[in-house]
Amino acid sequence: MSKPKVFEKPTGVKDYLPEAAAKLRRIEYRVMQCMERWGYREIITPTLEYYDTVGVASSTEDKKLFKLLDRNGTTLVMRSDMTAPIARVASSLLKEHPFPLRLSYQANVFRAFEAEAGRDAEFFQTGVELIGDASSEADAEVIALAIACLQAAGVQQFKIALGHVGFLNGLFQETLQQRQDAQTALKACLLSRDHVGYRETIKSLGLPREMQQELEGILRLRGGEEICRQARQVTKDPVAQHAIAHLCEIWDVLEAYGVSEHVLIDLTMIGDFSYYTGMTFEGYAADMGFPVCSGGRYDNLLAQFGRPAPATGFALKTNRILEVIGKSKAEEAPQRVLIVYTEHHRAAALAKAREYRSREGFIAETRLLADGQQGLNAVRQADGALQVHGSRYCDIISFTE
Amino acid sequence: MSKPKVFEKPTGVKDYLPEAAAKLRRIEYRVMQCMERWGYREIITPTLEYYDTVGVASSTEDKKLFKLLDRNGTTLVMRSDMTAPIARVASSLLKEHPFPLRLSYQANVFRAFEAEAGRDAEFFQTGVELIGDASSEADAEVIALAIACLQAAGVQQFKIALGHVGFLNGLFQETLQQRQDAQTALKACLLSRDHVGYRETIKSLGLPREMQQELEGILRLRGGEEICRQARQVTKDPVAQHAIAHLCEIWDVLEAYGVSEHVLIDLTMIGDFSYYTGMTFEGYAADMGFPVCSGGRYDNLLAQFGRPAPATGFALKTNRILEVIGKSKAEEAPQRVLIVYTEHHRAAALAKAREYRSREGFIAETRLLADGQQGLNAVRQADGALQVHGSRYCDIISFTE
Repeated sequence: MSKPKVFEKPTGVKDYLPEAAAKLRRIEYRVMQCMERWGYREIITPTLEYYDTVGVASSTEDKKLFKLLDRNGTTLVMRSDMTAPIARVASSLLKEHPFPLRLSYQANVFRAFEAEAGRDAEFFQTGVELIGDASSEADAEVIALAIACLQAAGVQQFKIALGHVGFLNGLFQETLQQRQDAQTALKACLLSRDHVGYRETIKSLGLPREMQQELEGILRLRGGEEICRQARQVTKDPVAQHAIAHLCEIWDVLEAYGVSEHVLIDLTMIGDFSYYTGMTFEGYAADMGFPVCSGGRYDNLLAQFGRPAPATGFALKTNRILEVIGKSKAEEAPQRVLIVYTEHHRAAALAKAREYRSREGFIAETRLLADGQQGLNAVRQADGALQVHGSRYCDIISFTE
Repeated sequence: MSKPKVFEKPTGVKDYLPEAAAKLRRIEYRVMQCMERWGYREIITPTLEYYDTVGVASSTEDKKLFKLLDRNGTTLVMRSDMTAPIARVASSLLKEHPFPLRLSYQANVFRAFEAEAGRDAEFFQTGVELIGDASSEADAEVIALAIACLQAAGVQQFKIALGHVGFLNGLFQETLQQRQDAQTALKACLLSRDHVGYRETIKSLGLPREMQQELEGILRLRGGEEICRQARQVTKDPVAQHAIAHLCEIWDVLEAYGVSEHVLIDLTMIGDFSYYTGMTFEGYAADMGFPVCSGGRYDNLLAQFGRPAPATGFALKTNRILEVIGKSKAEEAPQRVLIVYTEHHRAAALAKAREYRSREGFIAETRLLADGQQGLNAVRQADGALQVHGSRYCDIISFTE
């Protein structure tokens, strides 16, 4: 193994230069403000957690966890999501707080580098957890909030794909009972959205024609409210039927919120977290192949921390939203003023800088001129800005003889 | 080693519940805004860095670094400060950007648990680096900005202690040449502000009376501008003389900024980072025994990353400022409204919630009543607030029959 070069950083992590950092912070700020207005209160948890508690509960594959040892030889992990840490806090420091509990977070999370392109080892999330409410009303609230947050972040075009883990579990249990391998193979195809592979796997199973059609038919179960009706015909399994009924209730609430136009029911969707127990959803922005948000219901996680309770929530992938927004035009930037001065006029120049810095929308930089220097070489740009040494200013104010 | 309990978290790390988290974020937001107005632009660097580059340059003791291995067996560290990562970026991604370069950050940094009480393993910093300017003007700028940031954060009473590593280095070189052990022992006393130990160490050295007085005398070198004059008499060493001259220049600029009342020259001060090469400073809030900010000049660090340049900067210890501010009265909180409704009135209730959420200063939570339930048990508090299940609201709006 060779020594890293001085300018290198580890695989899968990024630097955000000023323009990108400003956009990322603006997204975070607006999203957190939106969550606050819906009654969600931010909590901050540590980057490091115990492997045996939060690490195990987090549902991230073991090999994807960043692990280290503390001085007592206990294994720590760098958090791989925020849902498990928040479940820990809800069950300990906040255990006396009555339900429902509405909590939000902005945090960086860590998953060890994966071979696939585009996967980051450290990424930024903003999200909420609504704990202690098992109703479809609660599920709809977090979906409607996810939509409001995407809009607050400036994502213009997006769709929320809404599914339910109970539908596929029930359907597969009905059609492929005792054939766990086949169930696993089909779910893997759906998770990677490999519909060709899904159809081929079904053919290879040697199922009765009717059952084969039933399993193939679900690939068409994507759309609006009508999907709920259609899905009811597909399966008689009670778990699947219950899932469909729950999705229909969620849909009704989303209509009352006036946001169902953004939602697409997709019964082939599988959430990427093993702790999901009910509805799951993903948000897709136009032109992006990967979700910008994901969420779902997880009714069994809190019991692992000693305070059994239903819960639902989501996370926005803030740095992916940056990739969507980053292409759009920058918002109105503050006016940047450069104040140059000779030593003799220092106090007046610094007072002027102070005045600008106290005004909304202004930035002031100061520069002492060298002895005998009477000004700076500023180059007027086509858009009127003044350029000095690669920096742009709207105005240069001189305090010189 | 026993397995951790489900509710435990690693030693030295914290959860911030909503009230503390809101205050911490408010401090960060205001400080970052202040830095922006002075022309500093935020950058974000990764939590993980290579040990051989940033880890070694960071000046944190090796045993205090959190280390882990990546898949290739290369040692990574969780960043222990932000100065070294920013030096890396200034020398790589920003290497074409002309000087001066003004950068800011808000970040969590990590230092492995120390036995002493009150030391966190993870803590929050906001700070700036002014790179490519060797002048005392630049040093004064970052000190004046630190003062503006402390004020923006809401710290009412504080003092900045200002020193220079060159003064003690020069003085000790003059008086204790060849006696490195004695120099180290005396510096250790000053670092821990152990003046009794300092005096005793001097006595034990068997120095000529005059030299002994000279070394003891520096303990009195704390105060305003007059200290510069007094210090000039103490030593003839050119390094120490140069340090004093530089401090006097900084003082003049701080007077022009109108902030010298907050500054105390303290020539016994030793910065806690080995990379400091010039002036160093620490900010102390009233009633707090530990600094809430620290900074200094580090003219040799960037050369380690291949772009030699002078630099100066500071970091505010945001979570310590929270401890100062946390005692003060909370600022005006948004108005929290609870909207309760029966299923029949859902659309009207959710529209009302939407209306509140779009108004500045309002938070709206919603709650569906159970079948047959006509309202909630709200208890009017002494201050007029309505309490429901441990949550407080300024108003409860009902959409029921």
